[in-house]
Amino acid sequence: MNIKIVCVGNVKEQYFRDALSEYYKRLGRYVNLKVVEVKEESVPKKPTDGEILKVTETETLRLISECEGYVILLSPKGKKFSSPELAKLLKKTEDSFSTITFVVGGSYGVSQKMFERANLTMSFSDLTFPHQLFRVMLSEQIYRAYTIINNVTYHK
Amino acid sequence: MNIKIVCVGNVKEQYFRDALSEYYKRLGRYVNLKVVEVKEESVPKKPTDGEILKVTETETLRLISECEGYVILLSPKGKKFSSPELAKLLKKTEDSFSTITFVVGGSYGVSQKMFERANLTMSFSDLTFPHQLFRVMLSEQIYRAYTIINNVTYHK
Repeated sequence: MNIKIVCVGNVKEQYFRDALSEYYKRLGRYVNLKVVEVKEESVPKKPTDGEILKVTETETLRLISECEGYVILLSPKGKKFSSPELAKLLKKTEDSFSTITFVVGGSYGVSQKMFERANLTMSFSDLTFPHQLFRVMLSEQIYRAYTIINNVTYHK
Repeated sequence: MNIKIVCVGNVKEQYFRDALSEYYKRLGRYVNLKVVEVKEESVPKKPTDGEILKVTETETLRLISECEGYVILLSPKGKKFSSPELAKLLKKTEDSFSTITFVVGGSYGVSQKMFERANLTMSFSDLTFPHQLFRVMLSEQIYRAYTIINNVTYHK
């Protein structure tokens, strides 16, 4: 299975980069993983609504251009899953698609076009997490899903 | 305000330790923070239900002995909050309590006594996260709540 994680900008903190490396390495045992970081738009210090809209639209076009196969958009507005439910969804999707793309928007989210392109919009939490930490949470959950699919004891 | 985070065992991965240090440092600007790690019970490789119950009961007694003031237990069974709702809850609780204790159980959760002691049981997600990563998520959310309470721009 091909898993693609598409997100905006890079992760600055070394500790989150190290955590991501670890989960990518573990996940690589089960899937063919590709992580794409599209360019982040620069935002003025106190952006207007118009400026924010322009940023999200530009970043969304970049994200969409990287989407392949079945697309899962991560958004607070999405549907909630438990870890076993996520595993079940990924397993089922393998029957019809060779690639699953997970999309994580930038600091100001994504524009409407991204919701239209996504096959599914998924929410991890009602809480707002920073983009960098969220990427760690996502990679850990995909790894966890594949340990469930492969009936392997989760490596803590 | 005194914030106490009580959890089971220590965090092994250096990257999660570094992330925690960073959030503890930031949070220390707004509150008097105390983090207590109670001793983790050793668990056999394939524990029986009885062995798991014994572990959770022992760890729960240790957690309870560290609880002060208003106690928020983190559990998948809890009530969900958004980040602004969490901020509002913490602000309101300051009127009646000088300490808020957040409790994170061990790998096998906590026993019934912990639910009885807690003033509130809160859930971050329907997903299961590893204990170490969850502690980072919790410290980030408490920090975020205090930036909201103090009307400070979130430091990304």
